[in-house]
Amino acid sequence: MVVKGLEGVVATQSSISSIIDDTLTYVGYGIDELAQFCSFEEVVYLLWHQRLPNKQELEEIRKELALNASIPSNIIHYLKGIPLNKINPMAVVRTGVSLFSFYDKDADSLDKEALYVKSLKVQAKISTLVAMFSRLRKGLDPIAPRKDLGFAANFLYMLNGRVPNEIEEEAFNKALVLHADHELNASTFTARVCVGTLSDVYSGMTAAIGALKGPLHGGANENVMKMLMEIGELDNVESYILEKLEKKEKIMGFGHRVYQQGDPRTKHLKDMSRRLCDITGNQKWYEMSVKVEELLAEKKKNLPPNVDFYSATVYHSLGIDSDLFTPIFAVARTSGWLAHIMEQYENNRLIRPRADYTGPDKQVYVPLEQRD
Amino acid sequence: MVVKGLEGVVATQSSISSIIDDTLTYVGYGIDELAQFCSFEEVVYLLWHQRLPNKQELEEIRKELALNASIPSNIIHYLKGIPLNKINPMAVVRTGVSLFSFYDKDADSLDKEALYVKSLKVQAKISTLVAMFSRLRKGLDPIAPRKDLGFAANFLYMLNGRVPNEIEEEAFNKALVLHADHELNASTFTARVCVGTLSDVYSGMTAAIGALKGPLHGGANENVMKMLMEIGELDNVESYILEKLEKKEKIMGFGHRVYQQGDPRTKHLKDMSRRLCDITGNQKWYEMSVKVEELLAEKKKNLPPNVDFYSATVYHSLGIDSDLFTPIFAVARTSGWLAHIMEQYENNRLIRPRADYTGPDKQVYVPLEQRD
Ligand SMILES: CC(C)(COP(=O)(O)OP(=O)(O)OC[C@H]1O[C@@H](n2cnc3c(N)ncnc32)[C@H](O)[C@@H]1OP(=O)(O)O)[C@@H](O)C(=O)NCCC(=O)NCCS
Ligand SMILES: CC(C)(COP(=O)(O)OP(=O)(O)OC[C@H]1O[C@@H](n2cnc3c(N)ncnc32)[C@H](O)[C@@H]1OP(=O)(O)O)[C@@H](O)C(=O)NCCC(=O)NCCS
Repeated sequence: MVVKGLEGVVATQSSISSIIDDTLTYVGYGIDELAQFCSFEEVVYLLWHQRLPNKQELEEIRKELALNASIPSNIIHYLKGIPLNKINPMAVVRTGVSLFSFYDKDADSLDKEALYVKSLKVQAKISTLVAMFSRLRKGLDPIAPRKDLGFAANFLYMLNGRVPNEIEEEAFNKALVLHADHELNASTFTARVCVGTLSDVYSGMTAAIGALKGPLHGGANENVMKMLMEIGELDNVESYILEKLEKKEKIMGFGHRVYQQGDPRTKHLKDMSRRLCDITGNQKWYEMSVKVEELLAEKKKNLPPNVDFYSATVYHSLGIDSDLFTPIFAVARTSGWLAHIMEQYENNRLIRPRADYTGPDKQVYVPLEQRD
Repeated sequence: MVVKGLEGVVATQSSISSIIDDTLTYVGYGIDELAQFCSFEEVVYLLWHQRLPNKQELEEIRKELALNASIPSNIIHYLKGIPLNKINPMAVVRTGVSLFSFYDKDADSLDKEALYVKSLKVQAKISTLVAMFSRLRKGLDPIAPRKDLGFAANFLYMLNGRVPNEIEEEAFNKALVLHADHELNASTFTARVCVGTLSDVYSGMTAAIGALKGPLHGGANENVMKMLMEIGELDNVESYILEKLEKKEKIMGFGHRVYQQGDPRTKHLKDMSRRLCDITGNQKWYEMSVKVEELLAEKKKNLPPNVDFYSATVYHSLGIDSDLFTPIFAVARTSGWLAHIMEQYENNRLIRPRADYTGPDKQVYVPLEQRD
């Protein structure tokens, strides 16, 4: 029997993150505390070592990430020579990470230590890549990462050339933490199926980035912002949403395969969205979002907002272009992908299910000359 | 309950190829007849249209493939500037296909017609890319595809600068046909999970190439040749294999998740391997292979050779470098990947299974300052 979309099928064991009764934990730590108190680097350490770092360990991973943040000049040169503003940013991220392997002499090693070094490289460089891409396509020079800034602040600095203020850093760090891992989501599963052949980390990463790009997955956050812009004004929300529902079109940023009651990440992003929209004076995005949420709660049951819904207005309020939202999701989720890739290697078996054949029965071969 | 490697789990319906009672069919046509009578282009047409082409339709798809075979000059230029002989060829193929999307203005379209055009482009260009890469890394100029040659002959021509003779063309064409599709193998499944998010064709393709690269999957054919070279002489086969088995190391090119009695593709490749080794006068590779097969049949039950085993000596006898075997597998399997990607879009649902959490129970958060 086919279980469409493998809904509810348990494909692997994992000790990285769990969703139990609509509660999300990373290695047993509730997401609420992590979002409130942790830097993204702490969470990276947690996902990769299965425990939180002490002060010294945190310092170390920070240093290592900073040391690995530069992009091979050859790649920069290539990106400068093409019409970047006509290319899907996720295609650039996918290709860029695939290219990183050219410059890593240990690209194919599955040795444990080499895997860890590779993870640091990939996590550091993907962040620089996204920020650099955004500048290059605007005709601006890339900005080198600063070793004294944390991961979240550094990204915004490389993007804007300005060290973010406290609330900007808090919001962006929180978004990174909340997007870091999410059990066997589609992109993580893609990565695990890929490296289940004992292929390399860069292959697993490119596969995952490609999957995240899809509008049913990471691509949704960008589409949320597009939708809000299309709606334009608070007063238009009701007619817009009702029309969509009538046409049985999906509302981006709502629904989830696993959560039935609601996504535990939403409340943190909703709160940040409210605070940031207040500060920027552009409350309308927040207000429209709340209205959309209320309408859907009224009209549809079991269709609460997911992580992508309020992250859209958080990023928008930070002045980030909509089509960078999914690449930023990729920067955050890289930490989880790498944790899952390493876990897959630890206890691997080829992931190879079956298909139920529904095509024509055995056909009689007719030579080319005799075909109509 | 976790089914490790999703063994036996039915993940989707599909009308492309079937494995029933150790028999393989493409759209209902037995693999034996297809391998014997069809050109690769006919099989591509079959997989994409679910029926064999007539003469005119075959002419058309041939023309379309030939028309789409060139690589953007920008990519060639980039490849010329890097130390290609230090880079894993599959990483180049993965990156190259990812790059193709930069030069396709319809890269993200899921419109049916656009998908078909994209498929033609990808199928044509991946072949040129592999041949070109092989020449560039040897310091040779790339050779433009010839419109008057079939797909198999064209590849060998672009690789060697010489139009292949009849038996070379027959062997290579047969290998392409036999590798074209294989139900829900790991790379095809990777592609389907990836595009199940409604991501684009290039993302699905890059994900699949990355998966094929692994030694448990397409990477095995290259390792078969490495093994034969390590063994060196017929007389060394027994001690070499027995030692491997004793150490519980896997013998590359043997075993299969689905086939229990044997892989129906093997006999065709075994036959071609014998004929080619006869012609080249290098019978030892064939004889060593047979000896390995016999030994394994004696020592291990249910471990018959798979598609990768005899394809290694086929490609080797055609003068192809070992590390191009997996890229060539990718060129052939592209036809199947694209068929499955299109089928996934036709009746899509996000592929998102669950993980069984085995990590620590709910942990109490300790602030950074208080951690040991
Ligand atoms: C996330 C998602 C892919 C989960 O999908 P799933 O478990 O495969 O569920 P399905 O797509 O099969 O949806 C089940 C039903 O709910 C409806 N539904 C699901 N999400 C919906 C949405 N966002 N808007 C409107 N209806 C929705 C479906 O149309 C379907 O209705 P039907 O049974 O009448 O056909 C899906 O909710 C979705 O596409 N959401 C929008 C994209 C998004 O925000 N993705 C980010 C996820 S973090
Ligand atoms: C193809 C393959 C991945 C299928 O794997 P699978 O269904 O997951 O089977 P497993 O790897 O779990 O193997 C089952 C048992 O057979 C053994 N086995 C499988 N393939 C073997 C091989 N090629 N040589 C020696 N032993 C092998 C395993 O060691 C295992 O033994 P155990 O039960 O004593 O531990 C596996 O046979 C393999 O690795 N083959 C070599 C690589 C190869 O040729 N791949 C190309 C496939 S087209």
